[in-house]
Amino acid sequence: MGKVIYKGNNCGFLCNKKIEEHQVSNFHTKKQTIVFDNPPSVIGRMSVVGAKEGQGPLGKYFHVVKTDDKNGEKTFEKAEIDMLYEALIGASECLPNKTADLDLIIAGDLLNQITSSSYVCREMNVPYLGIYSACSTMSESLAIASCMLNAGYFNNIACCTASHFATAERQYRYPLEYGCQRPPYAQWTATAAGCSILSADRTAPVVITQATFGKVVDFGVNDLNNMGAAMAPAAMNSMLAMFKDTNTMPKDYDLIITGDLGKLGSDILRDLMSEKGYFLGRNYIDCGSLLYDVTQNCYQGASGAGCSASAVNSYILDKIESGEYQNVAYFATGALMSTQSCYQGETIPCISHGVVFRRR
Amino acid sequence: MGKVIYKGNNCGFLCNKKIEEHQVSNFHTKKQTIVFDNPPSVIGRMSVVGAKEGQGPLGKYFHVVKTDDKNGEKTFEKAEIDMLYEALIGASECLPNKTADLDLIIAGDLLNQITSSSYVCREMNVPYLGIYSACSTMSESLAIASCMLNAGYFNNIACCTASHFATAERQYRYPLEYGCQRPPYAQWTATAAGCSILSADRTAPVVITQATFGKVVDFGVNDLNNMGAAMAPAAMNSMLAMFKDTNTMPKDYDLIITGDLGKLGSDILRDLMSEKGYFLGRNYIDCGSLLYDVTQNCYQGASGAGCSASAVNSYILDKIESGEYQNVAYFATGALMSTQSCYQGETIPCISHGVVFRRR
Repeated sequence: MGKVIYKGNNCGFLCNKKIEEHQVSNFHTKKQTIVFDNPPSVIGRMSVVGAKEGQGPLGKYFHVVKTDDKNGEKTFEKAEIDMLYEALIGASECLPNKTADLDLIIAGDLLNQITSSSYVCREMNVPYLGIYSACSTMSESLAIASCMLNAGYFNNIACCTASHFATAERQYRYPLEYGCQRPPYAQWTATAAGCSILSADRTAPVVITQATFGKVVDFGVNDLNNMGAAMAPAAMNSMLAMFKDTNTMPKDYDLIITGDLGKLGSDILRDLMSEKGYFLGRNYIDCGSLLYDVTQNCYQGASGAGCSASAVNSYILDKIESGEYQNVAYFATGALMSTQSCYQGETIPCISHGVVFRRR
Repeated sequence: MGKVIYKGNNCGFLCNKKIEEHQVSNFHTKKQTIVFDNPPSVIGRMSVVGAKEGQGPLGKYFHVVKTDDKNGEKTFEKAEIDMLYEALIGASECLPNKTADLDLIIAGDLLNQITSSSYVCREMNVPYLGIYSACSTMSESLAIASCMLNAGYFNNIACCTASHFATAERQYRYPLEYGCQRPPYAQWTATAAGCSILSADRTAPVVITQATFGKVVDFGVNDLNNMGAAMAPAAMNSMLAMFKDTNTMPKDYDLIITGDLGKLGSDILRDLMSEKGYFLGRNYIDCGSLLYDVTQNCYQGASGAGCSASAVNSYILDKIESGEYQNVAYFATGALMSTQSCYQGETIPCISHGVVFRRR
């Protein structure tokens, strides 16, 4: 290779352009979707949620509902670790030797330095890949794991993530004890964890047939409470890529689900998609809109990495296994800012990774 | 699949066991190393460093040396983004259509929510996988990218990371303005960025022949200044796995490099390895020990994700391309704590992912 010599001093700070129009108009240059020849199976799964989530519409589908948000621990952070640990251990029950049969864990979460995931993996004697794409972490982990299994590198991979209302509020907004008011377009970070065990096994009823890797999209939203509006363009970008890559339309899927856009965000996504000629009909739902009912005062619905992770690993995969749905596209969406970047005046870049579940 | 029903309330917080002996004695149960049939090539690379790093022993090997740690920006965070951006753009010069020929970027960094990587990828019209394993991020990205390329999913993948002394100190310890004293076993976070372009191309002189996925190891260190001692056991764990998986010994490699153990940490690693019967001789070096000379008052040497990323993408790969080395094992090491977890009394879990570079 010719050695690259490039002696510059200041390449300029390029990050303050508002509303990246080029990200929309020229968005689709190369394929972003990998279709698997040997689609990996979902052989185990588990969802663990908090009390509030247990009282919501999906309550009866979750495997474990906690009654204490601190789970008997001294800190909410430790309670989040417990939930993720329980989801991972519970999902691994499908394997003859439990977690000893795992070849790899792919995990991440919302806390700084993804500590919930790393502290859980400290208890496991299993290789670990830490990932981060905020609330898109579940679909990112499923996408990477599917690529690894399809290629034959491993037999069993655990994909998991978690979030906790109290830890996320403290870290991203204000500690709960401050009693800050929330605007009507806010969402509620789900106290929830989810884990899927993917396997090269060829007999389980549900497989992952394809994965779409998302690009970073920023439409200029800078309000830390308005996650749905910030993330909807990223969902649009990745969905359009999948439809074009695979030459499909929304009607070709029994169900299309997004992660945690909430009610406002999912309405924005419907509008954005219809502007592009893709009409999301009754086969489109958002996990954030499903998790709480209107009496629970959660405004636009749920958010957090655990939101879609728990809904997909309970309600959604139940429905696919039972044959109610055959072909489900899942696009979790993540907002990639930090509090520091927002304090420094930055807007919120977002991303969405997608996978398709199919009943064999 | 049989639905897992497991209704528990408190699985107990398992994270305060000190010195996980079982992690050592039973560490090696399954293969952690993937050997590639179609090893991907390193076709482009770039290193960008700060002034202090430019004055060190490797100064003449780096592609870009910045003279201003703020790079003309208002904040150190923006300067870190600039460095990473410049490394990515510079490395992509090897491709006919520059970054437009990239199929994927795999990146992460030390800042909360890996914002440096995400804000750089916002400027790119390329799918992005965010990863995190602290200072092991460079080798984690190379390992994942190699798996993806070996399987034929993509043609060109950029792997990159960065760190900055001022942003890391503010976030993990104290803002520089406080003028805090540093203990003699401290290391100095490198102001540096590195990027490698890996490709399915079969003609470039250097390939990645195998990747070893690390496990989380915690020997009970809880001093945020003593990173080398915390990380050495993780390096040992992954190195032993590679030697056993591939039936090799240290002498089978021209060079074995660790990321940023520093002088103290690399001495500990030598001791730990010799206890296990593997003697690291003159063919073992640590990038953290290389980056500064003794007159620069950096105590045990460099640390930070950018430390080994910049050294590998300049000095080390120069030497492999020139034929001085034929077969180099690279184990970057990462400490996975957050300030929050340490405030809450936790010890520091660590990880090390490894890859092997070979001259064709």
